[in-house]
Amino acid sequence: MNNSIMYNFSDKLKDKFINELFEFIKIPSISADSKYTKEVHKTALWVEKALKKVGCNKTKIFKTKGHPIVFGEQIIDPKLKTVLVYGHYDVQPPDPIELWDSNPFDPIIKKTKLHPEGAIFGRGSCDDKGQVFMHFKALELMNLNGLLNCNVKFMIEGEEEVGSDNLELFVKKNKNLLKNDIILISDTSIISNVQPSITTGLRGLSYMEVLVEGAKRDLHSGLYGGAVLNPIHVLTKMISKLHDSDNKITIPRFYEEVIPIRKKDREKISLIPFNLNNYKSELNINEVSGEIGYSTLERSSIRPTLDVNGIWGGYTGEGAKTIIPSKAHAKISMRLVPNQNWKKISKGFEDHFKNLAPKGVKVTVKTHHGAAPFTSPLGSVGYTAAKNAYTKSFGVEPIDQKDGGSIPIVPVFEEILNSRVILMGFGLNSDAIHSPNEHFGLFNFFKGIETIILFYKYYSEKNKN
Amino acid sequence: MNNSIMYNFSDKLKDKFINELFEFIKIPSISADSKYTKEVHKTALWVEKALKKVGCNKTKIFKTKGHPIVFGEQIIDPKLKTVLVYGHYDVQPPDPIELWDSNPFDPIIKKTKLHPEGAIFGRGSCDDKGQVFMHFKALELMNLNGLLNCNVKFMIEGEEEVGSDNLELFVKKNKNLLKNDIILISDTSIISNVQPSITTGLRGLSYMEVLVEGAKRDLHSGLYGGAVLNPIHVLTKMISKLHDSDNKITIPRFYEEVIPIRKKDREKISLIPFNLNNYKSELNINEVSGEIGYSTLERSSIRPTLDVNGIWGGYTGEGAKTIIPSKAHAKISMRLVPNQNWKKISKGFEDHFKNLAPKGVKVTVKTHHGAAPFTSPLGSVGYTAAKNAYTKSFGVEPIDQKDGGSIPIVPVFEEILNSRVILMGFGLNSDAIHSPNEHFGLFNFFKGIETIILFYKYYSEKNKN
Repeated sequence: MNNSIMYNFSDKLKDKFINELFEFIKIPSISADSKYTKEVHKTALWVEKALKKVGCNKTKIFKTKGHPIVFGEQIIDPKLKTVLVYGHYDVQPPDPIELWDSNPFDPIIKKTKLHPEGAIFGRGSCDDKGQVFMHFKALELMNLNGLLNCNVKFMIEGEEEVGSDNLELFVKKNKNLLKNDIILISDTSIISNVQPSITTGLRGLSYMEVLVEGAKRDLHSGLYGGAVLNPIHVLTKMISKLHDSDNKITIPRFYEEVIPIRKKDREKISLIPFNLNNYKSELNINEVSGEIGYSTLERSSIRPTLDVNGIWGGYTGEGAKTIIPSKAHAKISMRLVPNQNWKKISKGFEDHFKNLAPKGVKVTVKTHHGAAPFTSPLGSVGYTAAKNAYTKSFGVEPIDQKDGGSIPIVPVFEEILNSRVILMGFGLNSDAIHSPNEHFGLFNFFKGIETIILFYKYYSEKNKN
Repeated sequence: MNNSIMYNFSDKLKDKFINELFEFIKIPSISADSKYTKEVHKTALWVEKALKKVGCNKTKIFKTKGHPIVFGEQIIDPKLKTVLVYGHYDVQPPDPIELWDSNPFDPIIKKTKLHPEGAIFGRGSCDDKGQVFMHFKALELMNLNGLLNCNVKFMIEGEEEVGSDNLELFVKKNKNLLKNDIILISDTSIISNVQPSITTGLRGLSYMEVLVEGAKRDLHSGLYGGAVLNPIHVLTKMISKLHDSDNKITIPRFYEEVIPIRKKDREKISLIPFNLNNYKSELNINEVSGEIGYSTLERSSIRPTLDVNGIWGGYTGEGAKTIIPSKAHAKISMRLVPNQNWKKISKGFEDHFKNLAPKGVKVTVKTHHGAAPFTSPLGSVGYTAAKNAYTKSFGVEPIDQKDGGSIPIVPVFEEILNSRVILMGFGLNSDAIHSPNEHFGLFNFFKGIETIILFYKYYSEKNKN
């Protein structure tokens, strides 16, 4: 096992790269919050400048109805193969801000148990600024050392954390500009720093919002309590009926199109290094819980799930207020597995949820967005190049792994651009993306740059033959 | 039925009284919001001045740890009986402000279906500035016309809307100053402007806050969804178990000390004028709902209830965030009926709620505050005087009615001051207290003054004999 960085990064170069990434993280590009629109645009400009600096001879910021998309390319020979790198420069809101040990937008380096060489703490350090930045720096180094042997394009968007609403239209409109032979994305994770993995599947998503309405105004709970329907009671009862006692989802026909898992695929999963005690202790929980008949790894990768992501209604301030609220709300999302259709599932949820409502309340169900599940075929040129790159840089062959998350745009890319996506991630699941104290290991950052350079090497070689 | 005002209020006098009340309402004495502390103090000064003006020969503003208490008295003869008037000059926050049709602190008069003679719209117009001010004006008129035949004391506090935290200590410390023969409070309602009622009972209260904690941080729902307990799922399931299918509260021994309702009391309630269609249309609901076997009026007055007043957890902002929250919260309160002990009930709730939790989450239960239920014995001197006063002024005998709300300080007064409380309210339930567009009928305001004067007359006469 070789945990050291094989590529010859001088301390000076390391410091330079880290400082540049710090600059990137410092701009609070929170796409979900309209108060930060200006900062999001500032980040797009920063990305364009960075792309120019590392070798792109053509760059452009494309306006959309939402946040801009940054494009850049370095074409060294139109006859050579072209790699398209996709990533995002927007980040999740830092809330709950009080749980951060440091300012989310003032990155610092701290050592952790899993990152003894240090990790960068800050919102976006891993998801996805840090992982995008590895690609910039890999190109810079390849140019510096005369290693580049193919064309490179970048499409870095600013709305991934809010559903990539405007990306599909952009891709459709710019098929020629984006033309490529393979798409590379670093927005996933590896199993550990001693066991790399390639993500060969992603779950799909249906994200819903529900509203239960009772009386036309908040009521005094002394005068009306116990005599009229309380929308919070109704909503909690409806939510509690979305899973049965086996933790199966109760939406009719929800599992109908799920492809049964093959025995050998389950065996493969059971061989993935996984320590339940470590998992529980990292999360500080005593028990895991989920769909009956499946292991924790299966539940969080190859099985569909339903989670309430947020709930609110009534008085939520300090102290006490004795009201029966007029309204209660929840955000509810489902992760989907291959062959499930998110539009069908969203509709099924809506019908089911409305059926669960008692008489006397008004229920509104809205679909926020959705995503199809994704599966990567093993054995392609790009897959093999990635596998060889990980094997060389980590000294260990990577494991194929299904990721429980969703990158809605991945299946869309494949369909519109007619090329395959390779998911080469370098973060760890424990890096707390979307959570307070998000971080990204320095080992991972530099090992990622090295692995990406190796990918280009193997991919170009293969395509020369 | 005589809807006109019997007392001879000249138009000039009416205008004067209304304008004075407008002045009172215009000071935004929002006790819950520390931004308004100055205004609350200003209101206390206004009250003291008003008490002097109507005849109090001794007044004092008592500081507390919170907002001040205004005391005033007019002692005409120490040998005569003494009436203590309690009320509050603080008001609820006006939120949600956008639902008001006029400025909550710039009162105006508008006619409504139930108030064809006009009603004063403004925060505090009914609760409790308008109802307190009736007592000031009753004293003024009695002095003007030489009708006063007993001593009067006033205790007007500024923290009723935030739990009267400092009042109990004040009362204990000032027993002598507050010594009285009967306590009069106008902070409740009558059935309608053609059917007066005396509130002869108040429900008690237990107000709790609960917290369910899962993993130590918010988790990505793609990576962890379906594999770990989601505190929102757990909380919603626990809440849905607090009522059974008959809408009975499931806390063990919750109903154990509830006194069974006598048949004749239920008959009395069934005679109270109540139109279910009007009730539903005023709230804009299609269905009422509650404990099986009881009518709407019974459910909201003589039966104990449990309501979730607020719930929150996870992402509640705009758009979508795919997390499993670390924590989920709720505020839950119970209304209690005679013989239930709020401390016992709070403990029972805590034990039951913790028992409902599955393994793997941490549950915290906190008691915010509580109040004992209150029952007024019928047939006392004060009760009879009130009854005769209503009968004379409205031309209709008042009905005894249990109010579903709580005034925590009422049972405390009786205990410490060793005298009885008479609840002589004049508002209507539909006056939207605690809600946008709170109002108080002009009919109710002047009829209230008249009824209070009659109360003093009957009460003094009785005590002379």
